[in-house]
Amino acid sequence: MGLVVQKYGGSSVADAEGIKRVARRIVDTKKAGHQVVVVVSAMGDTTDELIDLAQEVSPIPAGREFDMLLTAGERISMALLAMAIKNLGHEALSFTGSQAGVITDSAHNRARIIDVTPGRISAALDAGAIAIVAGFQGVSQDSKDITTLGRGGSDTTAVALAAALGAEVCEIYTDVDGVFTADPRVVKKARKIERIAYEDMLELAAHGSKVLLHRCVEYARRYNIPIHVRSSFSGHTGTWVQNQPEGGEMEQAIISGVAHDTSEAKVTVVGVPDKPGEAARIFRAIADVELNIDMVVQNVSAAATGLTDITFTLPKAEGRKAIDALEKVRGGIGFDSLRYDDQIAKISLVGAGMRANPGVTATFFEALSNAGVNIELISTSEIRISVVTRIEDVQEAVRAVHTAFGLDSETDEAVVYGGTGR
Amino acid sequence: MGLVVQKYGGSSVADAEGIKRVARRIVDTKKAGHQVVVVVSAMGDTTDELIDLAQEVSPIPAGREFDMLLTAGERISMALLAMAIKNLGHEALSFTGSQAGVITDSAHNRARIIDVTPGRISAALDAGAIAIVAGFQGVSQDSKDITTLGRGGSDTTAVALAAALGAEVCEIYTDVDGVFTADPRVVKKARKIERIAYEDMLELAAHGSKVLLHRCVEYARRYNIPIHVRSSFSGHTGTWVQNQPEGGEMEQAIISGVAHDTSEAKVTVVGVPDKPGEAARIFRAIADVELNIDMVVQNVSAAATGLTDITFTLPKAEGRKAIDALEKVRGGIGFDSLRYDDQIAKISLVGAGMRANPGVTATFFEALSNAGVNIELISTSEIRISVVTRIEDVQEAVRAVHTAFGLDSETDEAVVYGGTGR
Repeated sequence: MGLVVQKYGGSSVADAEGIKRVARRIVDTKKAGHQVVVVVSAMGDTTDELIDLAQEVSPIPAGREFDMLLTAGERISMALLAMAIKNLGHEALSFTGSQAGVITDSAHNRARIIDVTPGRISAALDAGAIAIVAGFQGVSQDSKDITTLGRGGSDTTAVALAAALGAEVCEIYTDVDGVFTADPRVVKKARKIERIAYEDMLELAAHGSKVLLHRCVEYARRYNIPIHVRSSFSGHTGTWVQNQPEGGEMEQAIISGVAHDTSEAKVTVVGVPDKPGEAARIFRAIADVELNIDMVVQNVSAAATGLTDITFTLPKAEGRKAIDALEKVRGGIGFDSLRYDDQIAKISLVGAGMRANPGVTATFFEALSNAGVNIELISTSEIRISVVTRIEDVQEAVRAVHTAFGLDSETDEAVVYGGTGR
Repeated sequence: MGLVVQKYGGSSVADAEGIKRVARRIVDTKKAGHQVVVVVSAMGDTTDELIDLAQEVSPIPAGREFDMLLTAGERISMALLAMAIKNLGHEALSFTGSQAGVITDSAHNRARIIDVTPGRISAALDAGAIAIVAGFQGVSQDSKDITTLGRGGSDTTAVALAAALGAEVCEIYTDVDGVFTADPRVVKKARKIERIAYEDMLELAAHGSKVLLHRCVEYARRYNIPIHVRSSFSGHTGTWVQNQPEGGEMEQAIISGVAHDTSEAKVTVVGVPDKPGEAARIFRAIADVELNIDMVVQNVSAAATGLTDITFTLPKAEGRKAIDALEKVRGGIGFDSLRYDDQIAKISLVGAGMRANPGVTATFFEALSNAGVNIELISTSEIRISVVTRIEDVQEAVRAVHTAFGLDSETDEAVVYGGTGR
């Protein structure tokens, strides 16, 4: 009967009905004897609408003012949610990120939380109230300016508050019943994962699973906060993300799930002189313009020419920037040409259990081969294998791999309740 | 070339185009060598939309949460305005009421400003920036909760900041060219008033002129801040509201203008025993439910019955509450009946010059009589005469009085630029 932090995404509070539904769920938790802290995102499309407005007045909005603008979104949803709870006869108080003590650095639009001092939240809880906190926002330590945490910020707010307040669980409410063995929109027979270790969840998040973001899981792992991902539309138990007990009660699954990602593009630097330092110069040029690259592959050099190809993937949105940066160093490095391909998909198989199962890679590749899917790139970690394929093969590939590893459920159990937003 | 505080209402920043137009005007003021502090209201109908949302989730929203909700409106407009200014190449920083040091009492939805500590505004100005401040909002001294100032709050924010910062003028931008001798929507030949004394403006504001609210003018008078009311749509000089120099350069106008108000209702308590203390008991009952009444008239008692009638006016929205309160004390006081009439209008003639002109009242009543308008109630102050008439006579009455006092302009000069909102 301890403290529970609950986070509701934008699709859960998209309209007045949604807010009232969420209010009832919160009150139920309170009635069950818990202290409740709620982190809420902006309603439905509010944030997108604010971004559109900003674009209309200024093509490149300033970070400080952009954050001031966007934080209006949670201010609306949290105040409405507090009102709805009070209307059910329970005390509720809403707090901005700043009031909740979410202290960040000064990097507007992508601030990092550096401290949480939730004195006002604790006081509200001690007084018997439910505390509603604006997700996604904080206040900078140096300049006391309003900041936002960037993508997935509300989940991070929730986990950070759970850590600071010593919550027994951080519940992340979304529009699906939990984390699935594959995207239920692609694989009808995807199964809900009951429990998953932080590290597997990190790999899934990093490679295309959109239910939880990497950053939030990383934060939870650091502070050992169990996350319970569940739907605000159903009453079902969702997925628990937590430390895997070492040789403990749980039989460790070989494979946790199959993630896919169609948001990346592939850049190939063709005809790079195969001598020490050339690859470093290429990736320095990329790093200098602050691009994050994902997979990197260097082909074996053709002995006859002394030239090699270097291929990497990165978010499509950053493709233009990468090409420009590389064109600038082309003369210095002396490569032949650049190839850009955004018609790719990445399919990743994740599972801590694959460490001890050497047959996993073979089964994975056989499944793809049997489905007639060609592999263009391969990259592996200790608990993950990723391949790049043509984008049109992605659904076929994910389904084939899902079946090959015995992940299919008996029934089509996956349900997506709300819209696609969070 | 001193400090100028400018306030822009919701109709001036109703959309992206409006925000860009206002941004250009602000930059022009800055280029003319002024330091500029801008107070901005929520965009267009934003506040009404937020109120509707609140009603959907809770029939009687809590004050604290309601304020948290409403303040999102200015947050959006001020951030967009700062972006638009920066896009024109000038530094601008937006500040919430709390950040701007607007300290209030804890009366949510109708907080009073009790202190202004604009340290961050001064710092922004010293750094050469334009400061954009959210109107209508502050932070409570005791609980550090977000508060709103109620109706006309943004104008009050502007005047309060002007006073705290020692501004040379507070410019209030609206959708008309200034204060007119009558509502230009009713009287086509209404003239713009060039200069008006605080006390005349207070009477106009109290009796139906909507350009400036009483509270803001009162604040300006107390701190002797000149207000310049003007249009954000035209470049015209507007109306200066300031101290009237005693026997100074200005010839004092006999009449400043004609105000009208159709928002009130009339309550008559019929058959009140005409003995000491009865009126007091009636108005104590009204005061106990926190109603503000306006005009009060007691008829001469009819000698035969020893009974009298007491009539008062109050905002229509509070009519139900007044009737309920009076019905409760009916037995104790022993009056006959209550009459409620919301089909009335109040027409007020305002001018400091009428003090020394005994013919004003006669001219006023003659004008109404000639127009066939019946007078139901009369109330006067030293610089104002108000009458209550049938609501259907109001336009005719205002025009007749306007003409009778020689206020008509040669041309139809009044222009209303934007919507009707502020």
